[in-house]
Amino acid sequence: MGKNKFVFIPAGSVTTPQGFVASGITAGLKVSGKPDMAMVGSTVPANFAGAFTSCKFAAAPVILDRERVLQQDRIRAVIINSGNANACTGKPGYENAVKMCEIAAREMKIKPEEVLVSSTGRIGVQLPMSIIESGIVKAVAALSADGGPVAANAIMTTDTRPKATAVEVELSGGKVKIGGMTKGAGMIAPRMNVPHATMLCYITTDAAIDNKLLAQFAGNGADSSFNCINIDGDMSTNDTLILMANGLSGISVKAGTEDAEIFYAALLALMQQLAQEMVKDGEGVTKFVTINVKNAASASDAHKCAYAVSNSLLCKTAWFGCDPNWGRVIAAIGYSGADFKPENVKLDYNDRPVVRDAMDAGTPEKELAQLLKERDFTVNIDLGAGDADFTMWTNDITYEYVKINAEYHT
Amino acid sequence: MGKNKFVFIPAGSVTTPQGFVASGITAGLKVSGKPDMAMVGSTVPANFAGAFTSCKFAAAPVILDRERVLQQDRIRAVIINSGNANACTGKPGYENAVKMCEIAAREMKIKPEEVLVSSTGRIGVQLPMSIIESGIVKAVAALSADGGPVAANAIMTTDTRPKATAVEVELSGGKVKIGGMTKGAGMIAPRMNVPHATMLCYITTDAAIDNKLLAQFAGNGADSSFNCINIDGDMSTNDTLILMANGLSGISVKAGTEDAEIFYAALLALMQQLAQEMVKDGEGVTKFVTINVKNAASASDAHKCAYAVSNSLLCKTAWFGCDPNWGRVIAAIGYSGADFKPENVKLDYNDRPVVRDAMDAGTPEKELAQLLKERDFTVNIDLGAGDADFTMWTNDITYEYVKINAEYHT
Repeated sequence: MGKNKFVFIPAGSVTTPQGFVASGITAGLKVSGKPDMAMVGSTVPANFAGAFTSCKFAAAPVILDRERVLQQDRIRAVIINSGNANACTGKPGYENAVKMCEIAAREMKIKPEEVLVSSTGRIGVQLPMSIIESGIVKAVAALSADGGPVAANAIMTTDTRPKATAVEVELSGGKVKIGGMTKGAGMIAPRMNVPHATMLCYITTDAAIDNKLLAQFAGNGADSSFNCINIDGDMSTNDTLILMANGLSGISVKAGTEDAEIFYAALLALMQQLAQEMVKDGEGVTKFVTINVKNAASASDAHKCAYAVSNSLLCKTAWFGCDPNWGRVIAAIGYSGADFKPENVKLDYNDRPVVRDAMDAGTPEKELAQLLKERDFTVNIDLGAGDADFTMWTNDITYEYVKINAEYHT
Repeated sequence: MGKNKFVFIPAGSVTTPQGFVASGITAGLKVSGKPDMAMVGSTVPANFAGAFTSCKFAAAPVILDRERVLQQDRIRAVIINSGNANACTGKPGYENAVKMCEIAAREMKIKPEEVLVSSTGRIGVQLPMSIIESGIVKAVAALSADGGPVAANAIMTTDTRPKATAVEVELSGGKVKIGGMTKGAGMIAPRMNVPHATMLCYITTDAAIDNKLLAQFAGNGADSSFNCINIDGDMSTNDTLILMANGLSGISVKAGTEDAEIFYAALLALMQQLAQEMVKDGEGVTKFVTINVKNAASASDAHKCAYAVSNSLLCKTAWFGCDPNWGRVIAAIGYSGADFKPENVKLDYNDRPVVRDAMDAGTPEKELAQLLKERDFTVNIDLGAGDADFTMWTNDITYEYVKINAEYHT
């Protein structure tokens, strides 16, 4: 209880913490003519950490950012484009990622190594560098202390709404702020690791935190937020999470202190909110489903079981149909690879018992069907095999999902 | 070449081999009033082998059949119902499976242990035993030497057409026949093992083969046919493959002989044909896609890579849209867990190069789009990391798939 010393800030964004600027502009990368380039910067050099996709075909910007995480102590900015993923673009793609940082650095009068880069959109097409260059010039010129919301708008691809938030945290020495923005909305089944979505997420804070502790926050935070969501089972080549801490609040967070716990709790709440927003705004989504696995034999079993249910096309289409068809959930639990005795498994929808003793628990089907008509519900799975737990957030698969992905081809 | 000593028999079925009888009738289990019960029998006791689902929530008939495989030397019949899976039905479900065998045995004047049982349909509902009993009486009475096609019709659930075939094999001592039937068409991602779909498959032969060799044929055959298909990524509680060999041709197939190789080649061709037919008749399917993985570092890597692509919702919806969007294939290869160097991977659609040196191989997109308009095409993936190969057969995911599975609730 004492650790939840934070409040969400209405209309918060990456520019809510002191000393951060951002922008969102239209470079011309999207046929639609919508905003397609964003920037987040800090007025002073900021400590940073990153977590990136574990896909072996990592995009050029991911490869470059990983190098920077290892080689750089501090950064000043991240330049982000949507409409083109700069993934599977070989050496020219990598060189273009380097060039993006150089252009941004030239315009900001900083060093190229102080810039990170992210891309999202179509895979396999070289970036149109003249459009990119004029876009970066525009993005740097537009940087402002209230640019957070427009930046969140510019990183969207198939998202229907921008996703940004901020929290204020009360530490022993005073208040610090954390801001964040993210985008989905397809190819979302992140398994990010440190130095590990096409989810993109940028988090800023004016607390002073060293890179080692930031990396620990990024890794643990990703594992308990973005790595717990599964929209469509496909992990992207470009998933990126970047944390920047510029220290301008004058308040430090040090490893092993109670302040570190308080700060992490607030950071995690912000990351979980952004992760859940991604699921709710997933492509064609009409349902938000929490998969709660309890009493698994091991952490790995708990994860396998939750993942299998979150990834089952039959479960996801049944949810779309508001169909309590729990046989599909049971089948997924059964093939998940988790160890258990079928007769010990308890399945509940919210608080209504569904399966006991390897058979129907007797709750009238109408009651279950009513419950599944809600936008949000929870599938509770007690494997009765140990004491490991894992929670995932997922969604249904709809006609609209098929439409978006059979017809989308930027 | 010399091993392909077989020909497919037009309109072949499980009753094409000598001494097999079959039937398909309407018991009344389906609201639609379509045929819902089938039987396959041998006029003399037959050796047999089975492969069943590896789902830990195995259905009652699967549990019973597994016991029979271990305890029985020979069987006479298999009774099969669609419309109800008798899965997740606890002890009463198991007792009902036992009862189904007893009723069939009473009607056929054989021992209950000589009968196997299969069920497919809704999970979690107890069988209506009075309907089942009168159905079995009807099914036994209808057994006939030309009942194969009607049996294949009666085991269908969401299948749009029956799937049956037979081959004639030339062995050193003369000719033997193999017949088979199967059903899909959703919850199909079999991983059957011996004593391992809701695919159901029944294969008959009039060759004389001992149970040990039959079990080997069932296991190896399943691994190279049914276990190589993936329609929707969901493995069933009821997947069942049963082989029966009654020896009535008077010709034996013994382990380690050339005849065994010839027979297995014919059996495998029949199993692959049935497996491929299942994919082509998968729920809402408009595309038949072969995923060919070559030069993986290990057999496990080859399987992981083929499975990831066959299971990618983004690939499957792109195929539905005839969209060459190969970035989705590359992403799936990248997150499959297979080991490789991105620059060594070669991706081709049919014989057209798609990716080389981790970037676009230059084949005009129009050419690739044209190729994807065909009903059948092959995705060739050369990982350049070793010498292990694996081939899978899969399909697209369509509006119709979502419709069937959001609205299906027998």
